Order: sequence, then C-alpha cells, then structure tokens
Amino acid sequence: MRTVRIQHAGRAQWGQLDDHTVHLTTGMTGERTGQSVPLDPAALLAPAEPTKIVCVGRNYLDHIRELGNDTGDLPKEPGIFLKGPNALAEPGGAVDRPEWSQNFHFEGELALVIGTRASQLTPDTALAHVAGYTCGLDLTARDLQKTDLQWFRAKAADRFCPLGPWLETEFDPADVRVTTRVNGEVKQDSRTSHMIFDVPAILTYVTRFVTLEPGDVVLTGTPEGVGPLQSGDTVEVEVEGIGVLTTPIG
Amino acid sequence: MRTVRIQHAGRAQWGQLDDHTVHLTTGMTGERTGQSVPLDPAALLAPAEPTKIVCVGRNYLDHIRELGNDTGDLPKEPGIFLKGPNALAEPGGAVDRPEWSQNFHFEGELALVIGTRASQLTPDTALAHVAGYTCGLDLTARDLQKTDLQWFRAKAADRFCPLGPWLETEFDPADVRVTTRVNGEVKQDSRTSHMIFDVPAILTYVTRFVTLEPGDVVLTGTPEGVGPLQSGDTVEVEVEGIGVLTTPIG
Repeated sequence: MRTVRIQHAGRAQWGQLDDHTVHLTTGMTGERTGQSVPLDPAALLAPAEPTKIVCVGRNYLDHIRELGNDTGDLPKEPGIFLKGPNALAEPGGAVDRPEWSQNFHFEGELALVIGTRASQLTPDTALAHVAGYTCGLDLTARDLQKTDLQWFRAKAADRFCPLGPWLETEFDPADVRVTTRVNGEVKQDSRTSHMIFDVPAILTYVTRFVTLEPGDVVLTGTPEGVGPLQSGDTVEVEVEGIGVLTTPIG
Repeated sequence: MRTVRIQHAGRAQWGQLDDHTVHLTTGMTGERTGQSVPLDPAALLAPAEPTKIVCVGRNYLDHIRELGNDTGDLPKEPGIFLKGPNALAEPGGAVDRPEWSQNFHFEGELALVIGTRASQLTPDTALAHVAGYTCGLDLTARDLQKTDLQWFRAKAADRFCPLGPWLETEFDPADVRVTTRVNGEVKQDSRTSHMIFDVPAILTYVTRFVTLEPGDVVLTGTPEGVGPLQSGDTVEVEVEGIGVLTTPIG
C-alpha cells in the first residue's frame, strides 16, 4: 500500500493512495476517515514527520572507493550522521543550489520511516518497526564535508533531504534497484543487496544508542556515481517497487 | 523571569516560576492560565521542546588546547554538530554511564532555547529570537569521537543532553561565569566572554544554513577542564545568573 502525506484543506494530512484517489486517514499509520480526495501531485509532502533524520555514510563499497576513502578494510560499524527536520523537502519541490558551496552533490538512497518507537532492536525484530519505505536524496556540500569540523553545513542545511513521493508499506528492502538520474542520464545504478550494512543491521546498530520515534527517517547510504549539480538540473531518485522522487535544482 | 517545564497532571506543562510557585502558562512563551502549583523539583523537565539541538564544538581556546586540537589558528567559523531530541534529560535526572564507552566526559555549557523562528539572522537581531538561557551538560563519549565517522554515538545518544533547571528570560550572555563541578570539586571554571564565537555570532552563523524553530536548543561550547565520569559521580553545571543543573551518573 502507498501512504501519502498531502497538503489539503490548509494543513498536512495523511492518506492511503488507491490509484489516483487519496483516502484520508487519522495519521501515518491511522484508520481511514471516510473522506477521499483526488491525488494532486503538487500537494504531496515529504511522507514523514521526524524528530530526527538518521543517515548512514559509506554503506556501499564502490562509493567508499570513489571518494578515496577505501582503507582496505570494510567499515566494522555503520558510520552515522544526523540531519534535522529542517532538511526535509517535498517530492517535486525545487531545492536551490547553495551559493556557499562550490561542489553540491546528489546522493540517491533508499529511505525508510519508523512506525513504532524503536530501541534496542535485534535484526529479527527491526523491520517490524518500519512504517514504510521511500526514495531519499541526501544532498551534500562535498567541499564543506572536508573542511568543516562535522557534517553540519555539508549535510543538514534547510531542504537538503528531499523525500518521497510516498511510503510503500509492503516492501522487502533486501535486494531492490536504486537509480539516480540527472537530466535523464543515469548516474547511480546499484542494488540494496550491495549495502555493507543491510536495513536490519542499520536499525539494530542505531537503536543501540538512540531511540527512534514514529515518523523518524533513516537514509540507508548511497551507491557509487555521486557527482555535482548545477542550477537548472533535475534529479530523479528511483527505487524499484516504490517510485520516483523528482527534485529540480533552483 | 524563570520559565519552567514540569510534569503535572499527567503531562508536560509550561509555567513561570515565582519564588516556589509555578504559574502555569499556555506554552513556553504563553500567557498564564490562572492555575498555579507549588514547585516540586522532582517534576522539573528539560525546559525545551526541540526539533533539533545545535551544538558548538571548540568554542573556547583553552578547551581546544587541552584536547590537542590547537593548530595555531583560531577557528574561522564555528564547528557545529547536532543532537536529536532523544538526547534531552531532565534536571536532577540520572544518566547511566554507557557500557559502550571507555571515556565518558562531562562538558558544562551555557545553553539557550529559541523563542521565535529564526533564519538568516544578523548579530543585531539574533538575541531577540532567544526565549531564554539555561545550563547544558554536553555528555560526550570521548573515545568514540575519535574513532567514529561522525560524532553520532559520541554526542547524540539517548540522554546525552541534560538541560535545565529552567529558562532565565532576562539574561545577558556576554560575560557570565560557567562552572562545572564533579562530586563538589570544581573542574571547569570560565566565563562566556572567553568564547571564540559569542552567542550572536553563533546564531548568525547557524541560521545562515539551518532554520531554527521555537523550542530548539543551542549549546554554546565548553571551556577547558573536561574529564571522565564514573558511575556514582554527580555533575553540577552552574551558570551565573541562572542556577545549577545537577546530573547523577548511574
């Protein structure tokens, strides 16, 4: 099932998408209210209401290699960093290229949204806490990632996390294709089976230290093929079985 | 004026503290409801409802030196990192020493809470967006700060940010004493006038990249004197003109 979050009647509302009809619900994982509206793609919002956005860096070996970070050993633990809710951007919404970065990169990723509070998970129980899966674009000021103390400007600036177009609730994240296109040209094309840490391993690791709340977002890392964006570019992140997240660069 | 957040009648509520009486209000910066209750120190909550906790690293020169990070040049820009709301802990509440860190450190700091949405601030306008000031304890897994890709476990784990005991709304952050004691012994003792980036400079920098929301927390950095904590220790962070934040280590 596809769960959408839309701007309707002056506020953000959740619903279930059935063909081109949105059946409004009482919340992300709530019941149908009985009201329905036609889908307006321009009304789609990022399908999450996070208290935090937890991201995995260096989760595909070929991406580690392309950035020159291959030390010969695979990471023993996931490398995690945070964005705040300010980073969310809606599907189809433009993101301005920041004037303060000289190397603004796309990173297409499988994303997931937590459905029930999650702490001290095990690989066996982890996936039961996921409300659904979607496409994420981890926008990155690559130049500032190298110069700054931590990845704050580089990763966590306003609108640096387009997310959507919806949550797919029936989905197996183990082995799906993740593709990123810029102006129609394929730049990233890999499969989630190439992750160093799979989704259950990521959630088990993260929840050992941090409690995840319903609505929290986890980005699972990007494969090789990242590169710079210019104003006027259009980025598409496609996850097989979910859909396409489109982000024009302003 | 002292603004408190307390657990009362089964939920978190805001109030204004007058001697030992809490006059309940409609919100952090809201009006009095007319109801008042006696102050129960055990009912105090962290005085913030953040969407993110923005922290400054390396903002006192002597702290940079004690960690061996002095490169001869002062930082040209504040070094910023994030914690999520999961990191908050209430004043007086115990924080367990994590079994996964071998070098668990205290960092006492001046903290502030945002009162009105803040983006693209200037030094002249910045302080008008602050609801109040309080004491913060930036708990740090020092060993993992060095080994991990980013400061996630090291800084952002559950309850790694005790905050309180209240917000002081009439307060000039320019030159006040910040003291940290462990089991009554003074470990950190400096003044905010020794910050490399003062509060207006921090807020101007952060809001160039990230929009701050009402309730967001900013930690302004720690002076020299940080050190390890053991189970059974009691940490007190005192900011002159505000009060004392007490944190037992479990």
